[in-house]
Amino acid sequence: MSTRLKELVERLGGRLIGDETIEVIGIAPLSEAQSSHITFLSNPKFRAQASQTKAAALILSADDDKIVGAGYSGARIIAANPYAYFARAAQLFAQKRAVPLQPGIHPSASVDQTAQIAPDANIGPNAVVEADAVIGSRARIDAACFIGRSAKIGADTHLYPRVTIYEACEIGQRGIIHSGAVIGADGFGFANEAGVWIKIPQVGRVLIGDDVEIGANTSIDRGALNDTIIEEGVKLDNQIQIGHNCRIGAHTLMSGCVGVAGSAIIGKHCTFGGAAMILGQLSIADHVTVSSGTLVSRSITEPGMYTGFYPLAKNADWEKTAAIVRNLPTMREKIRELEKIIKSQNDDNK
Amino acid sequence: MSTRLKELVERLGGRLIGDETIEVIGIAPLSEAQSSHITFLSNPKFRAQASQTKAAALILSADDDKIVGAGYSGARIIAANPYAYFARAAQLFAQKRAVPLQPGIHPSASVDQTAQIAPDANIGPNAVVEADAVIGSRARIDAACFIGRSAKIGADTHLYPRVTIYEACEIGQRGIIHSGAVIGADGFGFANEAGVWIKIPQVGRVLIGDDVEIGANTSIDRGALNDTIIEEGVKLDNQIQIGHNCRIGAHTLMSGCVGVAGSAIIGKHCTFGGAAMILGQLSIADHVTVSSGTLVSRSITEPGMYTGFYPLAKNADWEKTAAIVRNLPTMREKIRELEKIIKSQNDDNK
Amino acid sequence: MSTRLKELVERLGGRLIGDETIEVIGIAPLSEAQSSHITFLSNPKFRAQASQTKAAALILSADDDKIVGAGYSGARIIAANPYAYFARAAQLFAQKRAVPLQPGIHPSASVDQTAQIAPDANIGPNAVVEADAVIGSRARIDAACFIGRSAKIGADTHLYPRVTIYEACEIGQRGIIHSGAVIGADGFGFANEAGVWIKIPQVGRVLIGDDVEIGANTSIDRGALNDTIIEEGVKLDNQIQIGHNCRIGAHTLMSGCVGVAGSAIIGKHCTFGGAAMILGQLSIADHVTVSSGTLVSRSITEPGMYTGFYPLAKNADWEKTAAIVRNLPTMREKIRELEKIIKSQNDDNK
Repeated sequence: MSTRLKELVERLGGRLIGDETIEVIGIAPLSEAQSSHITFLSNPKFRAQASQTKAAALILSADDDKIVGAGYSGARIIAANPYAYFARAAQLFAQKRAVPLQPGIHPSASVDQTAQIAPDANIGPNAVVEADAVIGSRARIDAACFIGRSAKIGADTHLYPRVTIYEACEIGQRGIIHSGAVIGADGFGFANEAGVWIKIPQVGRVLIGDDVEIGANTSIDRGALNDTIIEEGVKLDNQIQIGHNCRIGAHTLMSGCVGVAGSAIIGKHCTFGGAAMILGQLSIADHVTVSSGTLVSRSITEPGMYTGFYPLAKNADWEKTAAIVRNLPTMREKIRELEKIIKSQNDDNK
Repeated sequence: MSTRLKELVERLGGRLIGDETIEVIGIAPLSEAQSSHITFLSNPKFRAQASQTKAAALILSADDDKIVGAGYSGARIIAANPYAYFARAAQLFAQKRAVPLQPGIHPSASVDQTAQIAPDANIGPNAVVEADAVIGSRARIDAACFIGRSAKIGADTHLYPRVTIYEACEIGQRGIIHSGAVIGADGFGFANEAGVWIKIPQVGRVLIGDDVEIGANTSIDRGALNDTIIEEGVKLDNQIQIGHNCRIGAHTLMSGCVGVAGSAIIGKHCTFGGAAMILGQLSIADHVTVSSGTLVSRSITEPGMYTGFYPLAKNADWEKTAAIVRNLPTMREKIRELEKIIKSQNDDNK
Repeated sequence: MSTRLKELVERLGGRLIGDETIEVIGIAPLSEAQSSHITFLSNPKFRAQASQTKAAALILSADDDKIVGAGYSGARIIAANPYAYFARAAQLFAQKRAVPLQPGIHPSASVDQTAQIAPDANIGPNAVVEADAVIGSRARIDAACFIGRSAKIGADTHLYPRVTIYEACEIGQRGIIHSGAVIGADGFGFANEAGVWIKIPQVGRVLIGDDVEIGANTSIDRGALNDTIIEEGVKLDNQIQIGHNCRIGAHTLMSGCVGVAGSAIIGKHCTFGGAAMILGQLSIADHVTVSSGTLVSRSITEPGMYTGFYPLAKNADWEKTAAIVRNLPTMREKIRELEKIIKSQNDDNK
């Protein structure tokens, strides 16, 4: 299942230098590519590798081409953003290799009579679709997924096996949700009465925009009274927890193990490193980057990069610094005393 | 499906001031409530909003009523704990809207002949109930749940879709367990022999008391030789991990992403912020609050609030402080030297 | 179902001192063991308890036997590594109690015609096995598991209910995977183009060696172009996240809630405490121990123990130390000024 470079540039753009009839079967990294592959150069520090790659063709920027192009014998595709071009080319190869969607409902699935399933959607084995749910065109609901009452799944969205969508939640178009994800479980809301927790029913929904990807075993809670909202283009990695009534702005990206407490309002185009934790009831501006392992304990109003984790050390060294951290108030006091003594010495000397 | 205020106070208590025939359809926050809603004032800082709400009725404390009551034209319900009253009222509205439980076993479920299923319980599509399991009255076992051999589910407990209860584990009455939760997987126990890990079979159980709620994708491991115990009224959010042989005291609450290592003994009425981590083999007293993102590395013997996370900063500022933290022993040494010099100066001056 | 001590030493080795016809029904800790139990002493600090235990037999080291043996009236088994001996003995008791594997495919399972299922394997209710998958001898695939196209499960491997194995991933022999685990979901890879994230298809696999145990709700992502690799004997606890293209060295152990970002290369015989976080694109040497709650932000090239978490304190104390941490650059500046002043004083005094 090979692809001509001609087809590639017709579909994805870019300027082709070389033989447009060359056929490639897939993409490989610079150092591993063989003569049946296309490869890409997106980081200038790999220029030397690029000129030595065995790949039949090379995707690169005009600037890199000035330096690398002449020394490379294969075909070149000049692209404004070679890494994005690589991603799109890889998508093309993956689509060609993909098993075509088989429309229809597996006989072992349990689908309520009132559910609306697009005729070209696929419902896998043992999936359950409850009353009044709506499944869009070409949507793919894999084995053992659960789609609750009145939930909506947009066109071209793919739910991998064992995804749960609770009642009334809505997923946009072209979404991807991985196995084990749970969308719309109850938010964590209780009133305390004499030491006992009284449950506050969670009657909001989760509304997820178009082009959102959600990783394996990630959980997004439904709102208490209002809705939890994930805007279009958001990408969530695995094992993430999003509390009730949060809003995650468009095109924001969160790495694995991130946690977001209830009612946090997060801007657009933000990125969160792995295991970053965001407290509730705060807001984060657009274009904020939070480092891995960082706890966001207050609102962030300006774009930029924010960090807060204890630096790694050999255990013995950490024991020393941690002991001093615990005693920092004492250390500060000593410095103040020294300042006083020196000041009084200086006064004496006047 | 509206409710008269008369019915509300008959069921939930409180003192009604105003027209008891007023009907409301649900609860909404102060600022969003319409004339078909009841609302509540539980935080004095929203008093101004309360006097302006469009809601037909207002739940509030006697103290707040003295200040707000006269200026508000709707009915008022005076409650000792308005937030708990709100929770109970919301439960009432939710019950009225809920789809009634349909007793019976879905034909696609796999239920062992020796399992005891209460006749008024519901077993959903593709659920599996193994030999000698016991499912209590009005329990609701949703689609694709797995109830292992000899496990017990108490009356009125609701397992959302795709919950796993391993062999011999027991869940109390009126529990709620959300999708993806795993109760009773093996604890993490190995003996090391010449660098290779030898598995220690985990033959204890998980015993969960009444009125416990467990969030989506939360895991609670079975004990090694004895049992892991979750006492009554405990509330666990999503993505929590509880190791083997832990005991969580009654009415303790843990937010999302908390981790508890094996054999930790945690008191009653504690609260843990998101992503707090508790090491194993330690104990925590009753009425302890642990902040989000805090690692509990030693036992806590006194009630109170405990914290330990690196403060958030702009990345550039963090780089500076983190570098100094690494060098704190040097800084302490410098201060000691300064103290010595000054002391010797002072001695010279005597 | 009791076991003679004779059988125990014949199977597991060790030197028996005492009556080989004694029968025991299982293992219990020193303080809880009754006359039907065998117990073990692996920690010298429990020697006093050992001499008082009611157990019928005691596993202990030769050194401990010199001190404890004479005072204990039951039989003794002298073992080089009593804790490992305990583990193996417990395995033996557990095997005897285990429900025997029933070979065959449950009628409710969906198994593709092209899948190869060993005749002595067990496929549970509602399990799904896709085209060209291979299930090895005596493998046990519990209820509602999903085995994707061309995936391979080794002999004697046990998948607990609701495990997902994505397309083409491979699990070795004698593995144990707990409920909710997801093996082979897409790695988290995107190219940014004008603020929008373009998905990079993840076409690598996950390859898992022999004797690997994987905890509940743990996720291991497939590689982007190459494979994610978990070597033999690795033990992963619950709620762990392993990013794409990682390699975890043989016999490494990770406690609950650990996260490993993409392309991290981790050595053999390492141990990671709970909620340790490892950044991507770095490497960790063999025999490294990382403490709980520690973020590994750079490569570790030498064996040893590494730590980095903010020390726990009462909240009020933490507030003081955290404020000083934020101002450490100012404190350092003050110390420098003091040094300058003192130096100039000393210069004056010369």
